[in-house]
Amino acid sequence: MEKEFKPYYAVIFTSTLTENSEGYHEMAEKMEALAKKQEGFLGIDSSRNEIGITVSYWENLEAIKNWKQHSEHLIAQEKGKNQWYSWYNTRICKVEREYEFTP
Amino acid sequence: MEKEFKPYYAVIFTSTLTENSEGYHEMAEKMEALAKKQEGFLGIDSSRNEIGITVSYWENLEAIKNWKQHSEHLIAQEKGKNQWYSWYNTRICKVEREYEFTP
Repeated sequence: MEKEFKPYYAVIFTSTLTENSEGYHEMAEKMEALAKKQEGFLGIDSSRNEIGITVSYWENLEAIKNWKQHSEHLIAQEKGKNQWYSWYNTRICKVEREYEFTP
Repeated sequence: MEKEFKPYYAVIFTSTLTENSEGYHEMAEKMEALAKKQEGFLGIDSSRNEIGITVSYWENLEAIKNWKQHSEHLIAQEKGKNQWYSWYNTRICKVEREYEFTP
């Protein structure tokens, strides 16, 4: 019998930075810590080379909306647009299936 | 009027590597080049620090299934499990909304 899978949501945030990264890493850490405290938060993965990819996982769309509108997060988003990001893309996705490999 | 949005699919592949990465980067490049030639392929983003995140985008589930079963990709997956990856996770997601920022 297949394991039952309960769909959840992923936010795929891809970005490139400007040359003015002052304060960026502190803010990124702060926002990650804050995201983890939100209701409906499930997890987060993040890495950056030429492009930065952050994927956060959420129980439902309501949780994503609440996080998007969180007051401290709004300030970070504003600074992101004005200073840190030369480009970004946000995708809201429904996770329909998942496979894990652990040897 | 809101722009019409046509849903598509994302495969979120997160992984950590073993210490035996011989041949890994060549294979990763080869697989990315091959993925780009598949029908229904839309794009790919990739970055790696402590964790590697590769997100590929596809027109539909059929395209994802075909790519998963592609003969050369199957060989790469097998080598990945036997040698390169200490852990990985694959999530199949439906992209329901998308926002882009370009200053």
